[in-house]
Amino acid sequence: MQNTAIIRIHCPDQRGIVANVTDFIYRHNGNILYLDQHTDRAEERFFMRVEWDLDGFAIAPEKLQQTFEEAIATPMQMVWTLNFSSQIPRMAIFVSRASHCLYDLLARYSAGELNVEIPLIISNHNDLEQVANQFGIPYFHLPLTKDNKPEVEAEQIRLCKEYTVDFIVLARYMQILSSEFNALYPNRIINIHHSFLPAFAGAKPYHAAHSRGVKLIGATGHYVTSDLDAGPIIEQDVIKISHHDTVQSLVQKGKDVEKMVLSRAVQAHIDRKTLVYKNKTIIFA
Amino acid sequence: MQNTAIIRIHCPDQRGIVANVTDFIYRHNGNILYLDQHTDRAEERFFMRVEWDLDGFAIAPEKLQQTFEEAIATPMQMVWTLNFSSQIPRMAIFVSRASHCLYDLLARYSAGELNVEIPLIISNHNDLEQVANQFGIPYFHLPLTKDNKPEVEAEQIRLCKEYTVDFIVLARYMQILSSEFNALYPNRIINIHHSFLPAFAGAKPYHAAHSRGVKLIGATGHYVTSDLDAGPIIEQDVIKISHHDTVQSLVQKGKDVEKMVLSRAVQAHIDRKTLVYKNKTIIFA
Amino acid sequence: MQNTAIIRIHCPDQRGIVANVTDFIYRHNGNILYLDQHTDRAEERFFMRVEWDLDGFAIAPEKLQQTFEEAIATPMQMVWTLNFSSQIPRMAIFVSRASHCLYDLLARYSAGELNVEIPLIISNHNDLEQVANQFGIPYFHLPLTKDNKPEVEAEQIRLCKEYTVDFIVLARYMQILSSEFNALYPNRIINIHHSFLPAFAGAKPYHAAHSRGVKLIGATGHYVTSDLDAGPIIEQDVIKISHHDTVQSLVQKGKDVEKMVLSRAVQAHIDRKTLVYKNKTIIFA
Amino acid sequence: MQNTAIIRIHCPDQRGIVANVTDFIYRHNGNILYLDQHTDRAEERFFMRVEWDLDGFAIAPEKLQQTFEEAIATPMQMVWTLNFSSQIPRMAIFVSRASHCLYDLLARYSAGELNVEIPLIISNHNDLEQVANQFGIPYFHLPLTKDNKPEVEAEQIRLCKEYTVDFIVLARYMQILSSEFNALYPNRIINIHHSFLPAFAGAKPYHAAHSRGVKLIGATGHYVTSDLDAGPIIEQDVIKISHHDTVQSLVQKGKDVEKMVLSRAVQAHIDRKTLVYKNKTIIFA
Repeated sequence: MQNTAIIRIHCPDQRGIVANVTDFIYRHNGNILYLDQHTDRAEERFFMRVEWDLDGFAIAPEKLQQTFEEAIATPMQMVWTLNFSSQIPRMAIFVSRASHCLYDLLARYSAGELNVEIPLIISNHNDLEQVANQFGIPYFHLPLTKDNKPEVEAEQIRLCKEYTVDFIVLARYMQILSSEFNALYPNRIINIHHSFLPAFAGAKPYHAAHSRGVKLIGATGHYVTSDLDAGPIIEQDVIKISHHDTVQSLVQKGKDVEKMVLSRAVQAHIDRKTLVYKNKTIIFA
Repeated sequence: MQNTAIIRIHCPDQRGIVANVTDFIYRHNGNILYLDQHTDRAEERFFMRVEWDLDGFAIAPEKLQQTFEEAIATPMQMVWTLNFSSQIPRMAIFVSRASHCLYDLLARYSAGELNVEIPLIISNHNDLEQVANQFGIPYFHLPLTKDNKPEVEAEQIRLCKEYTVDFIVLARYMQILSSEFNALYPNRIINIHHSFLPAFAGAKPYHAAHSRGVKLIGATGHYVTSDLDAGPIIEQDVIKISHHDTVQSLVQKGKDVEKMVLSRAVQAHIDRKTLVYKNKTIIFA
Repeated sequence: MQNTAIIRIHCPDQRGIVANVTDFIYRHNGNILYLDQHTDRAEERFFMRVEWDLDGFAIAPEKLQQTFEEAIATPMQMVWTLNFSSQIPRMAIFVSRASHCLYDLLARYSAGELNVEIPLIISNHNDLEQVANQFGIPYFHLPLTKDNKPEVEAEQIRLCKEYTVDFIVLARYMQILSSEFNALYPNRIINIHHSFLPAFAGAKPYHAAHSRGVKLIGATGHYVTSDLDAGPIIEQDVIKISHHDTVQSLVQKGKDVEKMVLSRAVQAHIDRKTLVYKNKTIIFA
Repeated sequence: MQNTAIIRIHCPDQRGIVANVTDFIYRHNGNILYLDQHTDRAEERFFMRVEWDLDGFAIAPEKLQQTFEEAIATPMQMVWTLNFSSQIPRMAIFVSRASHCLYDLLARYSAGELNVEIPLIISNHNDLEQVANQFGIPYFHLPLTKDNKPEVEAEQIRLCKEYTVDFIVLARYMQILSSEFNALYPNRIINIHHSFLPAFAGAKPYHAAHSRGVKLIGATGHYVTSDLDAGPIIEQDVIKISHHDTVQSLVQKGKDVEKMVLSRAVQAHIDRKTLVYKNKTIIFA
């Protein structure tokens, strides 16, 4: 695999941004592999992701943050992040009882399709411990009662720190995290909601969809914020349903959309192709 | 074109419904062309549509209503309707300023694809009078002010009666009809709403979609009830969008979904393939 | 789970088929749960699937075949099959090296979503033995050389008989079975081909798709016949691609379509909702 | 509407292309509105589209071609084209008897959605003359016999020259143009083929699709080359069908895909977002 640097930027729209950034890379002997940019004219804001080969690049990786900051980012008022492809992100998975999203993630992981490490799985039930064991991943069963949520969260946080987790995937975890928890991982907790948000936010969306008589159901992968089911959307999809469908068949059909949407959202995050700005997510090509 | 009879039924679920209905048609020498049925087990309700060739059928069309009522419908507590393919429904189109849905309907009509008559088009603006003229359809311009809605509705109703309208299509009419108006055409007014309901009901759904940062937009064809944007859904579809889309490009892309969804909903209604029960729409095959 | 009988029929189109079949069930005190029928007017052929609750049914299961044959099937020249929901079909899975389809099937199986037994997995490689072990399913590694195909097929057949296999799923097996093998399991071998057939039949469809510059790629689940990639199609789907895609990214994106299409095809077969007639597959509702 | 310049480029992949191009625009006081680029690593070829506001741009439009050629294009071995948004392309439409694609194009044109002029419509039949008249567009009826094709093509070419046509849309024209004709408008004739190519190339694709028993049908918008149905693909889409569909219903359902795919392909061409390289079409964002 190539050793690359990835920069994601947003800044006030102004002349010369692309020229300055690409010239910076070019002058230091970098070969751009991917470049995608977007201008939000209503917000007068510019967004960019650029990835280049570090082979032969004139600036040492450990100097890159400071050099780019001074040469380009500060003058152009950029908010930006630097990543290296050699940094493999570490992903915790939180689950409850349903296995479909977990299996889909682990099957991709096991096939080497997700450039990620999965140091642990956390659940409030023990139903999926066997699945974790199949894939040789540590499984922590932290049962929730109506009284022990603060203690459980404290233990979840302790585990995520111990295992140096970079981001968390709620793979049908079905529990609401506290604002304090969310604040520890801003734009780094991905949830799958089983409806095409903003329709049917909250509990039991398939029941609500059945009751309303919609002709399609969907799923939404989004970053978690303290506003329930209102965080920045990463990926959505739907499938057609009909009057033949019961709540049970919606739940069943919905699983396919849920797992595909979640896996695509997670893939985009792992590939550092997402950028959140004002409750929306840019997905770079 | 074949001369057929179409019966749509719903009744309490019970043994022998299909046997009784098909045997009735069979005994009277009818040849079934289409049969579709559905059982809603939660509601313990049975739904059926059957269409058969009247050529050689032993019961005269004018006797069919009474004969079937006595022999089958009453004993089985059926709510049912009888139609003949020879009855071409008469459809009024209400429009405002946007032409895409109107053109799509009229292009299909003009090509002989919709088995319908379109005796008139009504609008609160005169922008589309030229389109009506292109297709030789009478156009009535009834401007709306904040004060004259009752008078305009009275005139709309008078025109619909004068032109013996069977059902009404709101092809981006953008105005809310009164409950009294709706009550005159129960399950016979079809609206296109420019979102995947129940998301973004009400005004300016594309603005709301853009603001929320959704990754797909949609449209919903539904029967109008006195509950705004909450009537029985006939057809829905969506298309993918991205962070590149502005409100204007959403409006533009949305037009394609709107016109396709509306035309499919209208087609299903014209073909007598819809049946409303408790705010949901069965769409028969 | 309900104890049901399922009949699938095709016969010359004629008056009274639905009436006769439903009346037969009704008279013997059966409660129809699902009924779907189709008439192919060009072929003058009628197709039907009916499923009813055996609770309280007046004919004993072991008499049903003969009773229906004499009362209904023979007089109406029906080709038909009878199944009971209590008969759980036994499915062999043939794989090669790619794990995505296998994982998707096993994840559904493990979650109790497929009403099937999976007595064995057969492969020409040992890459996926670990996956089989994860799920506790016997795995047989039968390496193929250019010389030993007859011996391997003989052993595959022996194993399928020993494990009383009802049907076989080629989950990216990548090998062509002999006509003799296919003849042993007519309409009971399901293959996933990694293109939207008939486009790109044969080897390396993603290379061909990339070379042709198509804007969508797909997958086809079909019954295997002695005509390569030309058997009756059960299920197809596509996804959009772009000029950004390389052969490698097509292979990767294609996996998602392949596994979903194969799992849906397998589901339809397990639910006895498929019926093959003249190289086409009816999929009943 | 903004007055913009649009440059489409392809050249050997090399360092500094984006930097050079964007710096050129930036130094001359241009504000980039859209930039999209693509690198085909297998071909070692770079592709780019950039559009910028000419307001305040330091190079006069009539000098731009030469200045960019000398400063950037020649040194980097670019194959490139320059367009101005103020140049409204002139589009001829060729039709036969089916109206759906023509209506869809004209409805969009009439609503001001296509930034194009349509100086004439040419047909081998007179069925659609009335449609042309509705929109006030000159219609030329040039009947084809098996003997007069050269004369008809000569007249078609004469008309296209007389009306200074930039590109031609075959909106279900159903006739094959000669290689000589095609050579006059390289990558400037857009055809809609009524299948998801390469499946069902040639005549009667819906009959072929029905016969093969596919579960989806599609349409392909492509540039015409002398290789029948093998030109660079611009846009494709499909819809699901079922065993219920007859050839007639496929034809009917297919119309919706055809018109949407063709209109999207035409839109991309008008917006100068397409670039053909080696029988594939890049579609810029």
